[in-house]
Amino acid sequence: MGGDGGPAAMLGGIERALKVDRSLRFLMFGDEAVLQPAIERLKLPAGAATIVHAPDQVAGDEKPSQALRRARTTSMGLAINAVKDGSADAALSAGNTGALMAMSKLALRTMPGIDRPALTALLPTLGAHDCVMLDLGANTECDAQNLVQFAVMGAAYARTVLGLKRPRVKLLNIGTEELKGTGELKDAAAMLREADYLPLKFDGFTEGDQLSRGNVDVVVTDGFSGNIALKTAEGTARFVTDLLRRAFTSSIRSKAGFALSKPALHMLKVHLDPNNHNGAVFLGLNGLVVKSHGGANTKGVANAIAVAASMVRNDIIRQVMTDLDEFRAHAFAGASAPE
Amino acid sequence: MGGDGGPAAMLGGIERALKVDRSLRFLMFGDEAVLQPAIERLKLPAGAATIVHAPDQVAGDEKPSQALRRARTTSMGLAINAVKDGSADAALSAGNTGALMAMSKLALRTMPGIDRPALTALLPTLGAHDCVMLDLGANTECDAQNLVQFAVMGAAYARTVLGLKRPRVKLLNIGTEELKGTGELKDAAAMLREADYLPLKFDGFTEGDQLSRGNVDVVVTDGFSGNIALKTAEGTARFVTDLLRRAFTSSIRSKAGFALSKPALHMLKVHLDPNNHNGAVFLGLNGLVVKSHGGANTKGVANAIAVAASMVRNDIIRQVMTDLDEFRAHAFAGASAPE
Repeated sequence: MGGDGGPAAMLGGIERALKVDRSLRFLMFGDEAVLQPAIERLKLPAGAATIVHAPDQVAGDEKPSQALRRARTTSMGLAINAVKDGSADAALSAGNTGALMAMSKLALRTMPGIDRPALTALLPTLGAHDCVMLDLGANTECDAQNLVQFAVMGAAYARTVLGLKRPRVKLLNIGTEELKGTGELKDAAAMLREADYLPLKFDGFTEGDQLSRGNVDVVVTDGFSGNIALKTAEGTARFVTDLLRRAFTSSIRSKAGFALSKPALHMLKVHLDPNNHNGAVFLGLNGLVVKSHGGANTKGVANAIAVAASMVRNDIIRQVMTDLDEFRAHAFAGASAPE
Repeated sequence: MGGDGGPAAMLGGIERALKVDRSLRFLMFGDEAVLQPAIERLKLPAGAATIVHAPDQVAGDEKPSQALRRARTTSMGLAINAVKDGSADAALSAGNTGALMAMSKLALRTMPGIDRPALTALLPTLGAHDCVMLDLGANTECDAQNLVQFAVMGAAYARTVLGLKRPRVKLLNIGTEELKGTGELKDAAAMLREADYLPLKFDGFTEGDQLSRGNVDVVVTDGFSGNIALKTAEGTARFVTDLLRRAFTSSIRSKAGFALSKPALHMLKVHLDPNNHNGAVFLGLNGLVVKSHGGANTKGVANAIAVAASMVRNDIIRQVMTDLDEFRAHAFAGASAPE
């Protein structure tokens, strides 16, 4: 158990999550000598948390290939293995994303029809609900087939978690005209345009400035662009709120204005706090692995736990598999099938 | 002359720019029947603007390859040609970016040592000055050599326009560790790390959330990621200010707070207004071509004109060429040169 600030945020997040949902049960993989005294200081319901002693840990800057060799001894490797052997319904980690992805893929394998898992999360929008975005950084380069698989998985996620019947899916591009973008994007768009039997509405390309507008339910992209977009959005939100803070403290008058507006501005803070959107899932694996941001606080960890619990209860893995089966059945039927 | 709203913003921008700098001279390429009466309504100094009748225009959704065939008749093609034949110091267009890039490259050719021009602009930061970012969308895919050339050009731009002696240059990536990212990025980083004779300080990788922090002077990226990042930043800034507006209008109390804070919030608005950062240049051509945002208002156009004039006066083309000569001299000297 880790993240940028050690196990403190994780433990606090577990305490917080249990206050909301007492039916949760946790296996904590880490150094017993550290975790045991820390747990005793928390007020957890009896039997809610069990420590599994795993003092060996994956370093934040460790190469995934290196971490893979220690899958049987590290806390990360053992937590993933608990999902594999059925002793846990989901694994949650705030550690090295590349290592988590590599270990999860090796232990849990990808679903039939999926070549690569995609890091998937919800982004805030101005619309009635969040939007699903994937891949946020698991795969640096993706071909058209990967992107189509992400679209199917993202739509299944939106149907399950957001309750949308026929999610609007768009591909992230640098223009909305059909001729824009890479060959992979054009090919993926052509394939999705034909897959009208899927429970999703493919709506062409979207651009970076539309992500938060609320006019798309699922944004599909390669992990490189997705990570750039996600982090740029986080950085810009912080940039604007920093400018806002400067503006409000620039004069006595504006300080008074700030004091008056405080309750309203609190809404803004809640909406933009990345902790309220913490918890990205590796979709496409035969098991649930959730990544918590390394810098998340207890609220962020509690949110990631709630995301994991909701996916377990909604049986997201089966939902995604059903959609993929449908997609493959049609894909294999091929051009000879009646229109 | 065009853009999303026809020639009105362009003409208003010219009027505005001339109020600040009466020494500017304009050639306006467009339909005389439209431009002549419009100009007469403006109060321009005598001889400041000359109409060149060019009624044929490139459509916003026209393929660059199509537009190229009409380079000799369209207003865009003729404006670029005026730079080539020396009758203009810079061309400014608010039209189709892909067509502008293709036509400019064909007419003006790339500088010696440059394979592809890069769309370059200044981004606002929390630091003491803006940061230079390129490529913002001219090249969907770039190899390591392209990225190194962008770094040299971006640094020359930062030295000239921002007055920095030894700009800090970083490559945009999805992590800061050396092993992160695409092969192109890793190769470009290795080449830049060795090019210590250049008047720039290569500082490794940066991520999307650092763009506005003020800890980098030049951000180098391929045109796909650059465009995604730029538009995501624009969209997120608008998203936050929209949420802010909602917050301020949510109660009478917050409305009063807003009224009090208005002068301070005006600073924020000015800082975030994309019109104040309008004007991206295609660096790497034997001539100056500046792209104004299609949706820019008169202030935005005036800003793009000021950017163009400043580059002409600073002889940015010669500055970039000098740096490139230096780079090529060392590159060709190769491994046999003394360290």
